[in-house]
Amino acid sequence: MNETSMKLAERMVSVTYLQQAAEARAAHEKKIKILIEQGKCPIDGWDDATIELLVNDFALMDSNNFRHNSGVGEREAKIFSGLVARRHYGMGHGVGRSGDIAEVQPKAAGSSLLNKLTNTMVLDVIRTVGVKKAAGCLVVPLATGMSMVLCLLTLRRERPSAKYVLWPRIDHKSCFKSIITAGFEPVVVENRLEGDELRTDVAEIKRLITSLGPESVAAVMTTTSCFAPRCIDNLEEVAKLCAEFGVPHLVNNAYGLQSSKCLHHIQEAGRVGRVDAFVQSTDKNFMVPVGGAIIASFNTKFIEEVGKMYPGRASASPILDLFITLLSMGVKGYKQLLGERKELKTFLTRQMEEVAQKHGLRVLNTKNPISVAMTVPSDAHTSLTELGSMMFLRGISGTRVIATTDVKTIAGVKFIGWGSHSKNYPHPYLTAAACIGITKMDVETFVQRLDKCLEKFKGSKAPVSVLSVNGDKEAVTSTGEVVDEDSID
Amino acid sequence: MNETSMKLAERMVSVTYLQQAAEARAAHEKKIKILIEQGKCPIDGWDDATIELLVNDFALMDSNNFRHNSGVGEREAKIFSGLVARRHYGMGHGVGRSGDIAEVQPKAAGSSLLNKLTNTMVLDVIRTVGVKKAAGCLVVPLATGMSMVLCLLTLRRERPSAKYVLWPRIDHKSCFKSIITAGFEPVVVENRLEGDELRTDVAEIKRLITSLGPESVAAVMTTTSCFAPRCIDNLEEVAKLCAEFGVPHLVNNAYGLQSSKCLHHIQEAGRVGRVDAFVQSTDKNFMVPVGGAIIASFNTKFIEEVGKMYPGRASASPILDLFITLLSMGVKGYKQLLGERKELKTFLTRQMEEVAQKHGLRVLNTKNPISVAMTVPSDAHTSLTELGSMMFLRGISGTRVIATTDVKTIAGVKFIGWGSHSKNYPHPYLTAAACIGITKMDVETFVQRLDKCLEKFKGSKAPVSVLSVNGDKEAVTSTGEVVDEDSID
Amino acid sequence: MNETSMKLAERMVSVTYLQQAAEARAAHEKKIKILIEQGKCPIDGWDDATIELLVNDFALMDSNNFRHNSGVGEREAKIFSGLVARRHYGMGHGVGRSGDIAEVQPKAAGSSLLNKLTNTMVLDVIRTVGVKKAAGCLVVPLATGMSMVLCLLTLRRERPSAKYVLWPRIDHKSCFKSIITAGFEPVVVENRLEGDELRTDVAEIKRLITSLGPESVAAVMTTTSCFAPRCIDNLEEVAKLCAEFGVPHLVNNAYGLQSSKCLHHIQEAGRVGRVDAFVQSTDKNFMVPVGGAIIASFNTKFIEEVGKMYPGRASASPILDLFITLLSMGVKGYKQLLGERKELKTFLTRQMEEVAQKHGLRVLNTKNPISVAMTVPSDAHTSLTELGSMMFLRGISGTRVIATTDVKTIAGVKFIGWGSHSKNYPHPYLTAAACIGITKMDVETFVQRLDKCLEKFKGSKAPVSVLSVNGDKEAVTSTGEVVDEDSID
Amino acid sequence: MNETSMKLAERMVSVTYLQQAAEARAAHEKKIKILIEQGKCPIDGWDDATIELLVNDFALMDSNNFRHNSGVGEREAKIFSGLVARRHYGMGHGVGRSGDIAEVQPKAAGSSLLNKLTNTMVLDVIRTVGVKKAAGCLVVPLATGMSMVLCLLTLRRERPSAKYVLWPRIDHKSCFKSIITAGFEPVVVENRLEGDELRTDVAEIKRLITSLGPESVAAVMTTTSCFAPRCIDNLEEVAKLCAEFGVPHLVNNAYGLQSSKCLHHIQEAGRVGRVDAFVQSTDKNFMVPVGGAIIASFNTKFIEEVGKMYPGRASASPILDLFITLLSMGVKGYKQLLGERKELKTFLTRQMEEVAQKHGLRVLNTKNPISVAMTVPSDAHTSLTELGSMMFLRGISGTRVIATTDVKTIAGVKFIGWGSHSKNYPHPYLTAAACIGITKMDVETFVQRLDKCLEKFKGSKAPVSVLSVNGDKEAVTSTGEVVDEDSID
Repeated sequence: MNETSMKLAERMVSVTYLQQAAEARAAHEKKIKILIEQGKCPIDGWDDATIELLVNDFALMDSNNFRHNSGVGEREAKIFSGLVARRHYGMGHGVGRSGDIAEVQPKAAGSSLLNKLTNTMVLDVIRTVGVKKAAGCLVVPLATGMSMVLCLLTLRRERPSAKYVLWPRIDHKSCFKSIITAGFEPVVVENRLEGDELRTDVAEIKRLITSLGPESVAAVMTTTSCFAPRCIDNLEEVAKLCAEFGVPHLVNNAYGLQSSKCLHHIQEAGRVGRVDAFVQSTDKNFMVPVGGAIIASFNTKFIEEVGKMYPGRASASPILDLFITLLSMGVKGYKQLLGERKELKTFLTRQMEEVAQKHGLRVLNTKNPISVAMTVPSDAHTSLTELGSMMFLRGISGTRVIATTDVKTIAGVKFIGWGSHSKNYPHPYLTAAACIGITKMDVETFVQRLDKCLEKFKGSKAPVSVLSVNGDKEAVTSTGEVVDEDSID
Repeated sequence: MNETSMKLAERMVSVTYLQQAAEARAAHEKKIKILIEQGKCPIDGWDDATIELLVNDFALMDSNNFRHNSGVGEREAKIFSGLVARRHYGMGHGVGRSGDIAEVQPKAAGSSLLNKLTNTMVLDVIRTVGVKKAAGCLVVPLATGMSMVLCLLTLRRERPSAKYVLWPRIDHKSCFKSIITAGFEPVVVENRLEGDELRTDVAEIKRLITSLGPESVAAVMTTTSCFAPRCIDNLEEVAKLCAEFGVPHLVNNAYGLQSSKCLHHIQEAGRVGRVDAFVQSTDKNFMVPVGGAIIASFNTKFIEEVGKMYPGRASASPILDLFITLLSMGVKGYKQLLGERKELKTFLTRQMEEVAQKHGLRVLNTKNPISVAMTVPSDAHTSLTELGSMMFLRGISGTRVIATTDVKTIAGVKFIGWGSHSKNYPHPYLTAAACIGITKMDVETFVQRLDKCLEKFKGSKAPVSVLSVNGDKEAVTSTGEVVDEDSID
Repeated sequence: MNETSMKLAERMVSVTYLQQAAEARAAHEKKIKILIEQGKCPIDGWDDATIELLVNDFALMDSNNFRHNSGVGEREAKIFSGLVARRHYGMGHGVGRSGDIAEVQPKAAGSSLLNKLTNTMVLDVIRTVGVKKAAGCLVVPLATGMSMVLCLLTLRRERPSAKYVLWPRIDHKSCFKSIITAGFEPVVVENRLEGDELRTDVAEIKRLITSLGPESVAAVMTTTSCFAPRCIDNLEEVAKLCAEFGVPHLVNNAYGLQSSKCLHHIQEAGRVGRVDAFVQSTDKNFMVPVGGAIIASFNTKFIEEVGKMYPGRASASPILDLFITLLSMGVKGYKQLLGERKELKTFLTRQMEEVAQKHGLRVLNTKNPISVAMTVPSDAHTSLTELGSMMFLRGISGTRVIATTDVKTIAGVKFIGWGSHSKNYPHPYLTAAACIGITKMDVETFVQRLDKCLEKFKGSKAPVSVLSVNGDKEAVTSTGEVVDEDSID
Repeated sequence: MNETSMKLAERMVSVTYLQQAAEARAAHEKKIKILIEQGKCPIDGWDDATIELLVNDFALMDSNNFRHNSGVGEREAKIFSGLVARRHYGMGHGVGRSGDIAEVQPKAAGSSLLNKLTNTMVLDVIRTVGVKKAAGCLVVPLATGMSMVLCLLTLRRERPSAKYVLWPRIDHKSCFKSIITAGFEPVVVENRLEGDELRTDVAEIKRLITSLGPESVAAVMTTTSCFAPRCIDNLEEVAKLCAEFGVPHLVNNAYGLQSSKCLHHIQEAGRVGRVDAFVQSTDKNFMVPVGGAIIASFNTKFIEEVGKMYPGRASASPILDLFITLLSMGVKGYKQLLGERKELKTFLTRQMEEVAQKHGLRVLNTKNPISVAMTVPSDAHTSLTELGSMMFLRGISGTRVIATTDVKTIAGVKFIGWGSHSKNYPHPYLTAAACIGITKMDVETFVQRLDKCLEKFKGSKAPVSVLSVNGDKEAVTSTGEVVDEDSID
């Protein structure tokens, strides 16, 4: 209702009440104005009705919702099912154009605006929570693994003779595979054991760059968020090397946006050396369904090139999810979630220490900001699978038991000690993590069940029938971690 | 409600009425049973309530909706916003696993089942509407352009020394760009003019394969659906060449699933020669929002490899859209839409012939099954942009005016006559198309407005101010087709 | 988004596209302006997105959705469940105030506006489809029966000494009961048999008014819509009597708004005599869920008094349903539904005549504009229940088999021939009706099944087990009509 | 999905994951089974998805959602608008039958079951939170005022010669009007002032019963929940009188279900004397939109008679709201809300005491369990309206300023001191209340703004322009309470 309509309404409803309504509406319009003017995530979250009103408003601006259009020649955005139309608020054009996924669509002003705002809001959040110098970002409807592929393909164009990607080992299949998919040859850099921790072998990276020749190296791909006892890579030192040798540097920050420590290291690395992009999942950091990632950078040029590299349009669905979620959380809400996560990480560690002590075990001493690892009884390696299964069946789906003795070959590369990020980690362990959205009750439930499982596990030394979690041979490792590795897309 | 609950309900509601309700429920359960048993698209479409009940049912099977789970270590599928949860029916795990996008997720049995069923239903539909020998397909949450990239990356692994993609010219940016993005060098094969039609230069393709060497050719990429006067590529002859020389053959069937003719040629090409995959958009063929594509093949191995090539998980949203839409349409509904489209293509052609005659123009004589082209007044090329703008502003957003004299450089390759699929098409023209979902009223409105625009255009020989459709220089061609080219993602 | 926001958006989206979006938005705003300005049902129906946008807009105007409110002392419109809030678009205040159900609520400008508009739109429709002189109406969240009670209670205040309601017999429990509930004594006026038809005994009404004394008669309650062979009451003659003797006249027009004939008689009765109000169901005439009625009148005073009679507020839900439905149908859509209904009434009659002839039966000759009656085999009255059950179990839920011999006592009044509107209708029959929303396929299915049932019924002269449709003794009449009588609330 | 379908799904998804899903489903089915078996409100609230699944399940059981039905003769439950169908989950039959609003509908087994369960769940809650001896209840789609009318009309049938309703004065228009609407004559019993409190004049009631004659008294109507300084009526003593003289006793418990004190008195009154029914609003006690009430009693017979008194069917919408809300709250959630309310009542009182002291005022000393009253500056009565307006405009919509000098005539009865429940309350005051759903922040905001208003009010002794809150003369009293009185429907 515009002002004319409000005026006309006075014939039916007293002007006094309408004035109040008009004030409420003005407050609503002001929120929207500020959002569009500043492009920032609002400090206070919005209620659902306000969010939906805006999204519906945007939908009206897409040409498929214009009443006077003739559809001759149109091959899209005619949505058959009412259910489908509804879940997309009537928007059907997706995002991007053939030339650039970040570009505005002539036929979809509303969708385009929503897309632009999502990108600027995310950038605002990234800066607010830790990477102050971030210059640009692009929310893509691809999960982290495929987003890494897109970054690598973008680098390929600029470095046609490059062949290798140097990769400090991180035992997650999808980031390793992203190198293969992009057509490069991964060069695995084994981690160094320091105390309980696994840390980046910077010297080895330097040796490899010089021995292979910087021009033949497409990128170094480092990782922040990972399972303990592996640590955040030494981003600053790698960044310096990359700057020195002119080698691109991609940071896999999968679920690290929720950790101020991960962000601090990214910020520092960008300051002292070279970081071409850091990539993070939308679902792991913002509690939306799987399907989006944020490619961020300290310079906007790389982001633009990534956008232009993407051929054609793409689904707007992950972007819409993020748009709604950021408006709903607000900066305040997001910070609160991050604060709670951090506290519960400390709580989780303390609780696990108690359980460990009770069972003659110990929590590994690492600086990992998200994940905690503790030793498991090591006298019977073969039955560790059993421990993993026990926990999975008790509804503890997010933990992993690591035997450290598994061997796995992926795309022709053999990994000794798969799952432990190391060829020779000295003892088996299990990991847990405190991720965004975790509750105190989650931790308490986990610790209780862990205690019971360990109790039971110690009692049963005889082999028991083991649950084959996904039925195919490859995945039945002794770790039970099969279930979990997919969490890193 | 299960049988026990129904029995208990008899204490509140008469058994007679409950029997009727039980029968209705049994009919509902039977539909679902048949769907899961056969994996086929139902003949008759389902109503929305039935569809939603099933989707909600699937959602219950995903672990994030289990009540007893402890979230320690879980980094996903905790959905923050109620609005977001609702639009995904509470499903948050996306599709696929780190190893394979087609794989079942241990934590998401419901989502996985939905994904599997979507794939089998689509395969059923592909077979039913024309490609009987199709062996497998994969619905990916990527639009056509990026899906072509994925296919090419898959081929790269198998043909490490290949460098070129042979590409019968089709003036759509995203398919050309998909070759670049995948890291290959496109070799443009200009089309041959036969009468009004632009047809595949098969001899030139053969010459190129032999001169470049088959092993250095990653693939030949042909196209079915395109704007007249370009025609469906000569798939059969290209397929024979590919078989003869052992070169992969990818078919860009972007919106060709809706055309029995396109499908017939694919089917034949698969029979007489080599077709590795044919790729089609979900939005253009099934009236869902932009964001998905179907990679289909005559052998399941290629499909499996594509699935394994995809690193990590991905958005389930485009798959959910298709699942809902196929259940809602049913085979009958889909066939009816295809039948209507075909009839309206004939109607559109007849109507355009009338307008052409009135204005001293003519409809070009081509076999294109979807698109129609007619000549435009050719005495004043510079003002053709004006004609395009005129129509766009009158709500005719799906037509294109082609000057045939534009020059455009994409990724370093110079295209003379960009937009016309040819270096030297003899005269300017405009195109329109009859795509799925078109109505008779669409055609009538279009033809009326076209008539008026031509009338007005003839009158105004003086240059008028021209609408710059998207404001950036690159896109302001004299064709006005900028608006439209994105339709091919 | 207001103009300021649109202007600001130009920094993100090209002004050209925004102009188009602004035009689309302006068209949208214009629709709303016209609605509020004229208060009429739009000629062309609106699409769902536009309707929801308006309803959400109204919701913003209710104080419970103001952000700055403090809830101390508020005892309502705090909605606990998100599901409930959503189905009411966040509106919680209901309609009306303690003093008057039609009054505007200070705290709920949006709900109030919606309520007012619903009333004016309905009045517009009533006038458009036939009762041109209608002066006012009130949509109440009560079904027809309870709305009749409200009218009668209003009359009671004005006629404190009145005791009786004269009631030309119509065998529907709820209108009879409405008299009892309102505390009056019903005086049943038996119908006169003319040919096949049952018609109003006007002379008897006159006799009763004079013999009881006009001042002791609270009202005459006539009926328009009913099952054949009963006809529309002779409204004009009754209205003249009521004018002559100063007796109020209420017309039960339950599902008669869909019949131009019913409306014509109401219009005429209002012209030549006295009609205080005519009451119709929202669900039966506008295809919304059960729960609302429209009290309409030729003078606004009675409507105002009814509004003031209602103590306190009431549910807004039936009003919201009607608001949405009227916007969705538009006048054009409603007229089309009425036209189809009328045609299908003729079609139904013809089809039943064919079946009747085949089985040696006949369609009764009546002027009922909605319902058709045909004779049934009369040699075995006891088994007629069986025929009703047969049809019910075959999914023919809207037909009734009338034995004409049932006796029923309601609130102390004994009805001979209950169900047939007559003490001595000469033969049994069944009825069917063509109501709004009926389809040709409905008629065809019905006629086929009727044919089969009659076939089977003739064959089985031996008693078969009879379905007791609702299990309680009172309702198990030999007619099977128990199922149906509730249709008249 | 039933077991057969789950079994078939094993061909697509590993049996292990399906087992987990089956367990989750079994847990879901068990919840439903227990609900239907016990008919009690669950202890722990359900999540939205589970609730919707059940409601959708019920909808499937209504005949309008059967696929095989033929609509000939059906006049209802064909829902035109998809939006409307969706908000009712496809249920269109409403509740009740012509004979009884509590009865099961043959055509709507699902709706009927939902209705029955709502009634049993509400009864369970009533018993749990305080009225242990409650024997039955009926949720009606009428707000409190109209529900009182229905109770009175039911009593009228049993006491045809009764004429009066004795009514201890409570200055809420709708309960007073309910007596008028039902056709009775209200006899106002003025309250007695004891200290600050207004209490029931039991002796006067006794005097009136004997002087008017018990048989001429239709009922005594007492009130529990009201604004301080009026108190809960002396239910026990009135109940004893009613038992002694055989006079019915109706208790208006509008928002008293949320107060253990109100319920305690009802329970006691039922034990020691006569209470025919106690009536409460659904919106005020259960945080649903306005539109429903609960008629409860210590004997089921009265409830049954009320059900039978209601002529025809009615909207199911308020019942559906309550059904959803009760499942969502659970007993635990409801008790928690009640506990918080009680605590915040204490907090509110303390906070108001502080403000009062600061301004030289005092909180009135009453036992009202929900509402608090404090004196206001009394030197300038005419400007008290101003104080009310000030607060309303500052978003304090739930408070009332009472001048105690207003005179109002309703239905011919003149009330001196309208708004204060008394002819001669000694001084003006304002009231606030702590109702269910109130938050600590609500109280804090209120108290701050109250403080400011009093500050400003003391400063401005000159008359200022006064907001006419609803524009009609009748409502512009000097109290500003016009806004609020509607809260009691």
